[in-house]
Amino acid sequence: MVYPGANHTRFHHAIGCMHLMQKAVRVLRFKGVAISDEEANALYVAILLHDIGHGAFSHALEHSIVHGISHEEISLKFMKELNTVFKGQLSLAIEVFEGKYKRTFLNQLISSQLDIDRLDYLKRDSFYTGVTEGNISSDRLIAMMYVQDDVLVIEEKGLYSVEKFLIARRLMYWQVYLHKTGLVAESVLVRVLQRAKELVKDGVMIPASSALLYFLNNEITERSFDKSTLEVFASLDDYDVWAAIKEWCQQTDVVLSSLSKMLIHRNLLKITIRNHPFSSEEQQEIRTRVAEENEIPLDLMHYFVFTDQVSNQAYNTLKPIKIMSKKGELTDIAQASDQLNLQALTKPVVKYIFCHPKKMKLA
Amino acid sequence: MVYPGANHTRFHHAIGCMHLMQKAVRVLRFKGVAISDEEANALYVAILLHDIGHGAFSHALEHSIVHGISHEEISLKFMKELNTVFKGQLSLAIEVFEGKYKRTFLNQLISSQLDIDRLDYLKRDSFYTGVTEGNISSDRLIAMMYVQDDVLVIEEKGLYSVEKFLIARRLMYWQVYLHKTGLVAESVLVRVLQRAKELVKDGVMIPASSALLYFLNNEITERSFDKSTLEVFASLDDYDVWAAIKEWCQQTDVVLSSLSKMLIHRNLLKITIRNHPFSSEEQQEIRTRVAEENEIPLDLMHYFVFTDQVSNQAYNTLKPIKIMSKKGELTDIAQASDQLNLQALTKPVVKYIFCHPKKMKLA
Amino acid sequence: MVYPGANHTRFHHAIGCMHLMQKAVRVLRFKGVAISDEEANALYVAILLHDIGHGAFSHALEHSIVHGISHEEISLKFMKELNTVFKGQLSLAIEVFEGKYKRTFLNQLISSQLDIDRLDYLKRDSFYTGVTEGNISSDRLIAMMYVQDDVLVIEEKGLYSVEKFLIARRLMYWQVYLHKTGLVAESVLVRVLQRAKELVKDGVMIPASSALLYFLNNEITERSFDKSTLEVFASLDDYDVWAAIKEWCQQTDVVLSSLSKMLIHRNLLKITIRNHPFSSEEQQEIRTRVAEENEIPLDLMHYFVFTDQVSNQAYNTLKPIKIMSKKGELTDIAQASDQLNLQALTKPVVKYIFCHPKKMKLA
Amino acid sequence: MVYPGANHTRFHHAIGCMHLMQKAVRVLRFKGVAISDEEANALYVAILLHDIGHGAFSHALEHSIVHGISHEEISLKFMKELNTVFKGQLSLAIEVFEGKYKRTFLNQLISSQLDIDRLDYLKRDSFYTGVTEGNISSDRLIAMMYVQDDVLVIEEKGLYSVEKFLIARRLMYWQVYLHKTGLVAESVLVRVLQRAKELVKDGVMIPASSALLYFLNNEITERSFDKSTLEVFASLDDYDVWAAIKEWCQQTDVVLSSLSKMLIHRNLLKITIRNHPFSSEEQQEIRTRVAEENEIPLDLMHYFVFTDQVSNQAYNTLKPIKIMSKKGELTDIAQASDQLNLQALTKPVVKYIFCHPKKMKLA
Repeated sequence: MVYPGANHTRFHHAIGCMHLMQKAVRVLRFKGVAISDEEANALYVAILLHDIGHGAFSHALEHSIVHGISHEEISLKFMKELNTVFKGQLSLAIEVFEGKYKRTFLNQLISSQLDIDRLDYLKRDSFYTGVTEGNISSDRLIAMMYVQDDVLVIEEKGLYSVEKFLIARRLMYWQVYLHKTGLVAESVLVRVLQRAKELVKDGVMIPASSALLYFLNNEITERSFDKSTLEVFASLDDYDVWAAIKEWCQQTDVVLSSLSKMLIHRNLLKITIRNHPFSSEEQQEIRTRVAEENEIPLDLMHYFVFTDQVSNQAYNTLKPIKIMSKKGELTDIAQASDQLNLQALTKPVVKYIFCHPKKMKLA
Repeated sequence: MVYPGANHTRFHHAIGCMHLMQKAVRVLRFKGVAISDEEANALYVAILLHDIGHGAFSHALEHSIVHGISHEEISLKFMKELNTVFKGQLSLAIEVFEGKYKRTFLNQLISSQLDIDRLDYLKRDSFYTGVTEGNISSDRLIAMMYVQDDVLVIEEKGLYSVEKFLIARRLMYWQVYLHKTGLVAESVLVRVLQRAKELVKDGVMIPASSALLYFLNNEITERSFDKSTLEVFASLDDYDVWAAIKEWCQQTDVVLSSLSKMLIHRNLLKITIRNHPFSSEEQQEIRTRVAEENEIPLDLMHYFVFTDQVSNQAYNTLKPIKIMSKKGELTDIAQASDQLNLQALTKPVVKYIFCHPKKMKLA
Repeated sequence: MVYPGANHTRFHHAIGCMHLMQKAVRVLRFKGVAISDEEANALYVAILLHDIGHGAFSHALEHSIVHGISHEEISLKFMKELNTVFKGQLSLAIEVFEGKYKRTFLNQLISSQLDIDRLDYLKRDSFYTGVTEGNISSDRLIAMMYVQDDVLVIEEKGLYSVEKFLIARRLMYWQVYLHKTGLVAESVLVRVLQRAKELVKDGVMIPASSALLYFLNNEITERSFDKSTLEVFASLDDYDVWAAIKEWCQQTDVVLSSLSKMLIHRNLLKITIRNHPFSSEEQQEIRTRVAEENEIPLDLMHYFVFTDQVSNQAYNTLKPIKIMSKKGELTDIAQASDQLNLQALTKPVVKYIFCHPKKMKLA
Repeated sequence: MVYPGANHTRFHHAIGCMHLMQKAVRVLRFKGVAISDEEANALYVAILLHDIGHGAFSHALEHSIVHGISHEEISLKFMKELNTVFKGQLSLAIEVFEGKYKRTFLNQLISSQLDIDRLDYLKRDSFYTGVTEGNISSDRLIAMMYVQDDVLVIEEKGLYSVEKFLIARRLMYWQVYLHKTGLVAESVLVRVLQRAKELVKDGVMIPASSALLYFLNNEITERSFDKSTLEVFASLDDYDVWAAIKEWCQQTDVVLSSLSKMLIHRNLLKITIRNHPFSSEEQQEIRTRVAEENEIPLDLMHYFVFTDQVSNQAYNTLKPIKIMSKKGELTDIAQASDQLNLQALTKPVVKYIFCHPKKMKLA
């Protein structure tokens, strides 16, 4: 919706992660860190599959299609299923992925503040969006990796690269991932699905693929997510959702059809972002006005006028990135950085959005 | 199916073409070629819309969804429709696009052997596939453009760049556009649509979006392609087709479901390519064998065992690329090239493909 | 000495700056900032010539070849001389360069904390060294430029890009410009010239080009730098200095020859860097030891054992980079940045180096 | 003189070659070609040193500084000298370099029509000049390498890449290596050295570094090129030559000073290129005229008015590039290419240049 060149896929990302992981293993082994062939394979399998639990429109619909189950948990379900098919060959990969394997640093390569996942997606997203400033030097960061006391660390001379990585990630969040046009599109998308579910619950027949209907009909939670759900989930992708939304443009339900048209015709709600919350009075007033002007029942207005919050924490001190001095001492990057006040980056930044139909003026 | 990074879109291409056209106009004006603001705008509109008539899966389904009407003709229909909406503002663009405008070189910028279209798609496809050898220097080719006697020409010192462009295009054809995995996927895709049409004609109900059903139900030709067809055509895209194919995997018709599964599971037919045709005897023999082995009626075997031909002409002497010497004389690039036998490139190369289910051996 | 790919020249940089300045003028005019053709030309001339006063090995020898006169002042002398040749055509460029022209923002494009000079050299140096993390988005920063109340400002939505620019510059300083191998090479180079001057003053004949001999023989200061000096200065470049150093490897003076050999054979002094100063006691002790071991008179030891300091200020609040909000209000970037503590970057970072012959251990 | 970005060095090229050779060894071993560690090291040493015999201004002065000895022969002398220093560790590298080792394909990696040297320099020169059309896919060509019957071959599917490589090399020759401004600069450079030698022979004292004087004073041939020559040769580089030419601008000999000034002030002779030779009558007439106009003795005119020829053979059938079919059959690329008439590329193209002072008109 924002960057016309950004059509890269999660498949591409998975391959890229595997490629970077192979580099990391090569670098660490070269520096004398013992990694057995079994462990290396576990790393490759784990990183290749780490995102397999992402469903249609991934993060955007992560909590709309299913409830109370994260994509990581679904990834794990897929891995366990594949482990059955491949007769236990993924057991070690699963242990590493879950963080249950005795050697902690292997899990840190998969999931930490400086994991292979981030090294790939920041570089990839920067490249395909053309936001060159988000570019990071994955190669150099990997070349600076080392393992000390079972902790994945970065050698001292990579300090500036880590700083740069944190700043780049922060920039990508506010400029790309939380871009306001993207945010409003996502909000509308979530509401389309909500409305569709509501209608289905009320017995209204709406067109959708069999896989999508499954998730519209059933409230899938962590508990009810069984093997057959997994199969349907695997077959559900962007095509099902987008093709349905295209059809829904012609549905009689005005909420469903107008939200759908907003997406298909790229004619989204207006969005305002600010640093402090929007009060429920502000919302209510505008809802009343829009409802009157458009003859839409007030109790449907939450589909068109709503507020939300987004946040990003550039650096989390709970799982610190460790810098290793030449003498082998470990310091949290937030302390190691001689000047740049990384401590400031640890505070989560929260912003508030307010969406409403165009032509409305936010008083 | 072949290059995981090649997810770029026709929308992206259209924007890129417009960008290059602006450069071309700037270069030509700088060299003293008079181009009025109206003519420049006509060029921008024409190149921006030149591919708008491409439907779902573009070239692959160009002759499956409609019949006897090319994508250029459909582009023209869109432009004419838009011209009504924009009250005649596209009239000159349409004239230029159709080659009816008095100044021929304007049309050559839109459609010729060295048009802006090719300058964009070769560079773009080379970039996104990673086939760096197909890269061309659009900038330099544009910088070498000139107009002599109303003919778009390339200045003599751009000779090697044109040679390089022709060789790169030839390479891209055989290595990317006619890649054998792409060819077999396309062939299967066409046959899925054929089968769907057949079933619909026989009264079988199969799931599909309303737009897709329209084209499955109606045999649209040049004559019957009216304004309402245009609207449905505009709303039909890859999502409709791919979402339908996903659903068709579960259909009872074995032809429809097995062809659909081949695409969705990336488990395609086996393909063989060679320089001379496959005889109908060869085909028949294999069809018989496959039919027996799989208990499929022989009259359905043309869906699974078939031959076809692909061809590419690297350079066409009928609409030559003209090279202008320092003295202003024009020569066909095929003559101007001092050594590289470009004449050889004028002969169309034809190759023959043969597709059949895996596990079969081609005797 | 450090990055084998970094062979780019100041000539290349000057052309690049001119290219970016043309972009900046185009952007500002597009946004309605009035810039006359004379002013635009003045900008182009001023940026093209802004570094012309850099002599052989530029910064490294800036204070060895001449004294008490900066490269900016020499650039100015060149411009004035050219202005005579070109009959006053550079007058406005000189005014802008000197910051005497009424419109301040024109000078800010030439010389400020976010000038065109930095936009070119950071990107260029990042590219040729391969330190991709120093890459900045010159294009985007220029696209965000605007002029408010005769001040060059950056629009609010370019905030993250400015942050990124400051961080990238800081990284380039410590990773490239103040790289320790570069620092020691520079220190040795300065001392070779010092020694050569000393010998010449003592009447020793040493080989050197006529231009280099001129500066070895004469102590050129701001006052004595006349037109004939300018001519000799213009003819002195890296070739004179390096060719002389090559010859000096064979000179009988052991200081001159050993320092020269260090450079030519890339066998430099050992360098140590730390955050607090090296005491004169530390120095003296090592000088005594090295003098004894190598039978070199103690009063020559300052050529081989010495300390120095380097510093960098990532951001200077005295000449702030101004951010313009949507409402047109200007804020210092150090205040505007919502979270990243740019205030911290205003403190100059000082580091101390200590150089001494190899095989010596720093106690 | 032509491409301001092309400041890359032979040192950089040597490192790049070594890098590519490591890739080639990895690829070949992966495909089952046995290469012992000793052989691999020999390849690395041989490719790292293959150009070490290139002197100042390499090809340009290859036949001016010494006579009757090629840079390959000098490289060999260096390797043999180093072999003494390193006690025989380079013996195998030398055998491979000389083509005397039993396994022929190792030498083909060092020196053939598709050797590692070309794979590096074409890509590198294309990159630094910005002539993107000369770009080749070294990675893909290496990935397509194989060894059959001790012959280095390219697998059939790399056919288009080899074609592209040959076309790119041809383009680089005519657009970069034989660029007319480069040709005239080279011709003048050679004549400056010739004149300097003549003067020295006549007893005129001219400034030059000791290394350069050695080669001006002595006519070094293959026979007289001994170990002490090697040492002086090693110390002679571009700095000596260019620094001397700068000094020679002030010499009294008008030939030496005016040719030197042409280079230093980038004010070269005028050059004309055509496909047939320039007759001695043409030359003589212009020499007479220029001599009269400038009051230069006619017998010195060959320094200012002269003709020469340049040639390039895009493909040499004597040492063919072999393509291997899937069945393991080898064909010369000139035969294997289905359409592009590579046979035409085997004919050497010869062009004739004519240089003379500006302001002269070539009748």
